[in-house]
Amino acid sequence: MVDVSEIERAAALIQGRVVATPTLSSGPLSELTGVDLRLKLENLQYTASFKDRGALVKLESLDADERGRGVIAVSAGNHAQGVAHHARRLDIPATIVMPEGTPNVKVRRTEHLGAHVELYGETIEEAREHADRLRAEGGLVFIHPYDDPAIIAGQGTVGLEMAAQAPDLDVIVAPIGGGGLISGLAIAAKALLPGIEIIGVEANLYASMHAAIRGGDDGAGGQTLADGIAVKAPGTLTRPLVEALVDDLVLVTEGDMERAIALLLDEEKLVAEGAGAAALAAVLNAPARFEGRTVGIVVSGGNIDVRLLTSLLTRALSRDGRVVRLRLEIADRPGALAAVSAIVAHCRANILEVAHQRGFLDVPARRAELDLLLETRDRAHVEAVVTRLGEAGYKARVLSDLVTPEG
Amino acid sequence: MVDVSEIERAAALIQGRVVATPTLSSGPLSELTGVDLRLKLENLQYTASFKDRGALVKLESLDADERGRGVIAVSAGNHAQGVAHHARRLDIPATIVMPEGTPNVKVRRTEHLGAHVELYGETIEEAREHADRLRAEGGLVFIHPYDDPAIIAGQGTVGLEMAAQAPDLDVIVAPIGGGGLISGLAIAAKALLPGIEIIGVEANLYASMHAAIRGGDDGAGGQTLADGIAVKAPGTLTRPLVEALVDDLVLVTEGDMERAIALLLDEEKLVAEGAGAAALAAVLNAPARFEGRTVGIVVSGGNIDVRLLTSLLTRALSRDGRVVRLRLEIADRPGALAAVSAIVAHCRANILEVAHQRGFLDVPARRAELDLLLETRDRAHVEAVVTRLGEAGYKARVLSDLVTPEG
Repeated sequence: MVDVSEIERAAALIQGRVVATPTLSSGPLSELTGVDLRLKLENLQYTASFKDRGALVKLESLDADERGRGVIAVSAGNHAQGVAHHARRLDIPATIVMPEGTPNVKVRRTEHLGAHVELYGETIEEAREHADRLRAEGGLVFIHPYDDPAIIAGQGTVGLEMAAQAPDLDVIVAPIGGGGLISGLAIAAKALLPGIEIIGVEANLYASMHAAIRGGDDGAGGQTLADGIAVKAPGTLTRPLVEALVDDLVLVTEGDMERAIALLLDEEKLVAEGAGAAALAAVLNAPARFEGRTVGIVVSGGNIDVRLLTSLLTRALSRDGRVVRLRLEIADRPGALAAVSAIVAHCRANILEVAHQRGFLDVPARRAELDLLLETRDRAHVEAVVTRLGEAGYKARVLSDLVTPEG
Repeated sequence: MVDVSEIERAAALIQGRVVATPTLSSGPLSELTGVDLRLKLENLQYTASFKDRGALVKLESLDADERGRGVIAVSAGNHAQGVAHHARRLDIPATIVMPEGTPNVKVRRTEHLGAHVELYGETIEEAREHADRLRAEGGLVFIHPYDDPAIIAGQGTVGLEMAAQAPDLDVIVAPIGGGGLISGLAIAAKALLPGIEIIGVEANLYASMHAAIRGGDDGAGGQTLADGIAVKAPGTLTRPLVEALVDDLVLVTEGDMERAIALLLDEEKLVAEGAGAAALAAVLNAPARFEGRTVGIVVSGGNIDVRLLTSLLTRALSRDGRVVRLRLEIADRPGALAAVSAIVAHCRANILEVAHQRGFLDVPARRAELDLLLETRDRAHVEAVVTRLGEAGYKARVLSDLVTPEG
């Protein structure tokens, strides 16, 4: 239904209109894992994900009448932006339906790209029904996010480029949402690099492809870092392609993706969203499996909310013992804060914030609580500060609730 | 003293051993500025800055005796990491001297790359004197961060690559610290692309090259986001090269760089340090100057402390009205918090944190202060929330001191 020649035609079509993103060796992550890793940087696309590719190929397949009437899509994420961006460039009216609860930043980004956004319904299903009514009323063309040969051919250009940019690849690891990316990628990569292994990665909360092909639980759903691949049912077209062409399916947890996001930022200076970090997370979970092989990782997108990113980074600092919040009970008399501060300074930790509370019911009268936010070197340094305070009679405990949504 | 043929030899030497970083079109930033911008992504180097290039060229110029005795450098930043990384690969012992106050994360990064780090002195000058003693005692080779023809030739490979990757460039904008990067880059780019304009950017707190060539103030020094280019005196070799080859020198403020860092992260999904964002900051300050031209921007490095980055991102959210801290004085009686919360919810703002205080001297008896941290859409939304609260009798003021070092 889609073969490599169609993907090659798609590549010719999008050439110069979609970023030919680089496939770069990752020195620090290769050292960390002991695996020769190459990152395909789809987060550097115009709308910061591979969705630009399929959207352009699909829009280019429409005839003049269809273009005149316009297109419609249902998406609160990267698909919305890809469709909006290329529709504007091609002068095709685009309507995007999103559920009512969609974060405003996603609405604005899509509107900023020139699309008309309609907020409708509580769930993506209700939004889809609304989109279907609008489609019927206006004679619009529905742009499916993955279950469409043109979309699959477009996303497949990622595989063509990786095969050309890194012909020594033994394995490609890519995220699976609906399966459009990995289907196209597998068709292209297996045609050009016979013997290559393709591994698909799902978030364990949304394991629909894994469940459909392997059986078992399809995940609990709910909030995930990987909203870009939080898909409840595999595509009709993509499922058999994945079954035929993808050599293994693996699952990653929220914590795995959180760690991978932090590593991509800190070590590679790249911003990835949860779905974009899922493939790296899978390799980090099982580096021994990839030992001695050259592994291409699709960093599929970079659209992560800045507030969420800030929160993840602060959690990473906390985990590494580079920021710690301590709570001490101290005598409520002059000099106590000075004494504690002196001990902290002596340990060469840096006080970032102080909060001093008294009068709560759980603190004995004449006692007060002192909260310190400290900059420390690592977990051992935290231990040293706590020990030193204890030796001086100040019992300190590490608060785990460091992280606020603010950061 | 350095000509393009030396830079071409340097390029051949480092080929395959230093990342040939991409020069990518920046869609979102090009739209924002109305200028066709191309980003040279030196933040994707192994040690996340262009310093890898010069360090390797210099180390490769040493003879077997020199390699056996080892090298020494003074740097708390990117030069330290570049030297350490390539010295380890070449099996050359490397000592790096840093001032005692150097943040631990920089010490660890350099040690992790295999160098021996010595902390000495209060200032970089004292560290340099110590390094000079060690150099003399051990017969070590001193690796200067910029005032060395081999270093200049190495950094110049950035210019060769940009000319090859984007031959339609009309202008290149690059940061200036000691001047090694821009000297080599200008030699290479002007040889390959006659007529190209080269613009150097300094932080206004460290305007030493600007002052030396143009006269005027060399800046106040002190803390800067652009520690990578916080250099107090231009090089003996680089100053005349800059004077001869760089067409203009411009200055940027801390705020300019902060904005550029946030834009690179949010729009381009790239992490840049202050120095790495300085060139973009200069274009953002004066887009009209570049109108109609193709402008290459050197994103020279990405080594920004995660805590600092987190803080900058939170400030950006605050500036955009996406997070706001409000202080209200309310009657200290049951129901006040419920009433305020209901108004906020009705405005569709999201409460992230609540702090409720009473008993401070500046609050009248029977009154309490309520601080709310809210997630809002933009500045207009903040205004709407404040107005609505005011209409209900709750006078709210926006606190400007949102940002803590934690984020």
